[in-house]
Amino acid sequence: MTKTVKNAAGRLVPTEINGEKHIPYKGVGKHKPEGRKHAPRIPTNADYPPDGNKLVDNLKDALIKAGLKDGMTISSHHHFRNGDLIMNKVFDTAKELGVKNLRWFPSASFPCHEHLIPYLEDGTIQRIEGSMNGPLGRFTSEGKMKGTAILRSHGGRYQAVQDGEVQIDIAIIAAGTADPFGNANGLTGTSASGLLGFALADSQYADKVIVVTDNLVPFPCVPWQIQGNYVDYVVKVDKAGDPDKIVSGTTQITKSPDRLLLAEMTAKFCEATGIIKDGFSFQTGAGGTSLAVSKYFGDIMREKGIKARFARGGSNKYLVEMLEEGLIEYILDGQTFDLEGVRSMRENPNHTWTSPFTSYNYHSKGNFAGMVDVVILGATEVDVNFNGNVVTHSDGLLMHGIGGWQNCLFSKTVILPLPLFRNRIPVIVDEVTTLVGPGELIDVIVTERGIAINPLRKDLIEASKNSGLPIKTIQELKEEAEKICGKPQKPEFTDEIIAAIKWVDGTVIDVVRKLKKFD
Amino acid sequence: MTKTVKNAAGRLVPTEINGEKHIPYKGVGKHKPEGRKHAPRIPTNADYPPDGNKLVDNLKDALIKAGLKDGMTISSHHHFRNGDLIMNKVFDTAKELGVKNLRWFPSASFPCHEHLIPYLEDGTIQRIEGSMNGPLGRFTSEGKMKGTAILRSHGGRYQAVQDGEVQIDIAIIAAGTADPFGNANGLTGTSASGLLGFALADSQYADKVIVVTDNLVPFPCVPWQIQGNYVDYVVKVDKAGDPDKIVSGTTQITKSPDRLLLAEMTAKFCEATGIIKDGFSFQTGAGGTSLAVSKYFGDIMREKGIKARFARGGSNKYLVEMLEEGLIEYILDGQTFDLEGVRSMRENPNHTWTSPFTSYNYHSKGNFAGMVDVVILGATEVDVNFNGNVVTHSDGLLMHGIGGWQNCLFSKTVILPLPLFRNRIPVIVDEVTTLVGPGELIDVIVTERGIAINPLRKDLIEASKNSGLPIKTIQELKEEAEKICGKPQKPEFTDEIIAAIKWVDGTVIDVVRKLKKFD
Repeated sequence: MTKTVKNAAGRLVPTEINGEKHIPYKGVGKHKPEGRKHAPRIPTNADYPPDGNKLVDNLKDALIKAGLKDGMTISSHHHFRNGDLIMNKVFDTAKELGVKNLRWFPSASFPCHEHLIPYLEDGTIQRIEGSMNGPLGRFTSEGKMKGTAILRSHGGRYQAVQDGEVQIDIAIIAAGTADPFGNANGLTGTSASGLLGFALADSQYADKVIVVTDNLVPFPCVPWQIQGNYVDYVVKVDKAGDPDKIVSGTTQITKSPDRLLLAEMTAKFCEATGIIKDGFSFQTGAGGTSLAVSKYFGDIMREKGIKARFARGGSNKYLVEMLEEGLIEYILDGQTFDLEGVRSMRENPNHTWTSPFTSYNYHSKGNFAGMVDVVILGATEVDVNFNGNVVTHSDGLLMHGIGGWQNCLFSKTVILPLPLFRNRIPVIVDEVTTLVGPGELIDVIVTERGIAINPLRKDLIEASKNSGLPIKTIQELKEEAEKICGKPQKPEFTDEIIAAIKWVDGTVIDVVRKLKKFD
Repeated sequence: MTKTVKNAAGRLVPTEINGEKHIPYKGVGKHKPEGRKHAPRIPTNADYPPDGNKLVDNLKDALIKAGLKDGMTISSHHHFRNGDLIMNKVFDTAKELGVKNLRWFPSASFPCHEHLIPYLEDGTIQRIEGSMNGPLGRFTSEGKMKGTAILRSHGGRYQAVQDGEVQIDIAIIAAGTADPFGNANGLTGTSASGLLGFALADSQYADKVIVVTDNLVPFPCVPWQIQGNYVDYVVKVDKAGDPDKIVSGTTQITKSPDRLLLAEMTAKFCEATGIIKDGFSFQTGAGGTSLAVSKYFGDIMREKGIKARFARGGSNKYLVEMLEEGLIEYILDGQTFDLEGVRSMRENPNHTWTSPFTSYNYHSKGNFAGMVDVVILGATEVDVNFNGNVVTHSDGLLMHGIGGWQNCLFSKTVILPLPLFRNRIPVIVDEVTTLVGPGELIDVIVTERGIAINPLRKDLIEASKNSGLPIKTIQELKEEAEKICGKPQKPEFTDEIIAAIKWVDGTVIDVVRKLKKFD
């Protein structure tokens, strides 16, 4: 059995995962990193083609040239979301070459990667470190993955690479457009995905970098989001990705009247507490409810005749409309959630690229998240101490990634609009199944039956006093839900750790254990 | 006396400079770096203001907060060229605080920095590593600097910082516009200097980074050329720099009929040898003759109805006109040499920013220089083996920096249009006073009395055979000059090394010694 210790959040976490040392969570802002950033090997131009042409015939050749071998770490980005066409091929090739024990280090995985389950079973892939949405999450939950999964936020992924906690051997960067030198962007071509920022750390720190594109242009590929100076090989393929599949369920505005109510209440709360004011800033996550909040924000801004200094993306058509209407001065975007986002980013200089480095990396000299006035996020569960969970459901199954969720908690006000229950399971619980975000960073829970404000935010309690909004305690909300649904049964876990959850500073905030029913 | 060894170019160079080990030049592409890039300390957001506001009252406070103390390395960029208003103040402050033995590590220094001579004399500044134009060059030549100067190319400077050869304690980045988080650009504001690329390495690798601006905007400063995530402190001053002084003598097109002839011959040579063709690329340096070459290139392109895929800057009004006329698809710019360059870069997405990292760093996976079809450069001297000198004059005085000159030698064809003599001193000599660029990389010398092609470039010799151009050997050109001016007297040097000249890979290609007349 793995040795565990109680971390600062009271969770039992291991100090060793997959044979590597990891530090238990110490509290928000408490872990002070020592040491230095990861130092990649110094390359020399003398080892690269003098004319800058790094084209290689095909992906297999590139992987062989990059030295693909047992035990390596292969990374990839998820800007194509469920439209990724490359990573399945990469592991098909690894299988074909008989390479074993790989670590896949994607910025996120999607249902399209169900294809990889046989490779997880036969040991081609030893483990995945990155979010596991859908089938891979279930596979992991069932305790079938050979190694232990490690989930990191977008910022935590950058931090882990920067700090040398994860050393990438081969980075695969699928790009809408690239030149033979390796300069690449996601803005143009028939496989445009918008940004390539999730691959930034990979390009900077990986030992070998392979750019894959279906739209090869003569040097220079302008603008470049990935710099060819970091790239080893360029491969032209028939199709680099399927941008139509960027849009997923979580990137459409909700049509549910219940969810729209949540969104409206959230917007009203922000209006009543003075958060919405001229020059303010906001971020709404990828969930359907969060997206609806932007819409209501827009209505309020129009009415008041004010504008926002900036909105943080993930961008989508709603945000783009607000930018084009002049309600928002800048979109600082990390990820385009639909093709309108891609178009706007290509055309509008005020639709600005960001990366997990600029926006979310906790091990830098500050990041953008702290400068956002209000962020609207989702959660699978929240507990009476305002702790949040986004990775497991109340049934204990690991089904989601962390995304930028943890990183956004550092914004000035964090609001979670949540239905009081889902499928008759209350969302507010005594203790979250998996701790992903500490309660001290979560300010407001908006439900259809009332709004709970974190007692730490006396200013918001004061400001919303005479708002007419249904302010309640989180205890009251929990009790209301339990009156309707009954007290939910807690999932029963074995001791076996199937995944570790990292905090933004690289410490282990919690783990996910294997469910008894899978034992 | 310093111990010296003969390097691969036959020059006697020290293996230790200023108490640090340095590697003698081994030949082009021969030195293979071992080891890893410099790894900066890992910072944490927990040590920075949660709201991202890094404003400090004044420069002095910022320097004190940054821990300014004896023996530190202070870096700066030269995008303002002779209009730098900050660095003199930085060292005034150091003097005021009684700090000694500083190393100043500018990307270049200019006559405006003559102000620093007393600090070089009193030991506030121990030495300068960077180009020394004008008065500082003379001061150094006279052997008055306490330490030994080290001159690096723009790419070599990036390489030295990246590789940890030069570790910067405090980087000062003067910017036209910045926000309180430290995002900064040189595009806007009354002190716009165009780019800030020369400060890129400094921002990425320095221990502490101070941004100085006179145009503070609310977050976000878009676009950012320097990322606030690397910045420690932001200081607002009355005036960050004087853009009117960006234009210097070397950034105006020549009016001399002799030089115009050189430029025209150069262009004709490129036409005759097929270098000028549809989709080609070129770079003309900052010298007046080089600038005139662009003009003639334009004439030829118009006549032929072709366009260039890209031109590399330094940009200036001539290049901007060609871009706007459609003769050039992209300007890949590293430095704006006039205000038209700044304007174009601000307005035109095809006027693209580059940095010493993308364009010139030899310790990367290739750089842009190798992809340029033809580059037109200046030189103070060339010898019969096509070796070039740009830092000293034939009188042995150190008067110029290397700039991007060494880095550009990796372009496909390197042409030096040079007058056969200057002030009755021949430019083609038996052996260059200071070796800055190896002859194997210099292809063509164009003089008003003939064109010499490097025997290594059989293709160019063949292609120009029936061009009607006055092709001669370099020996013939040298003899013609000597017939007119007489054999020039060689300067007499002592053994004392006053400056080391680095090659692009960090090795020592030559040194400059103190002149006997100053002994």
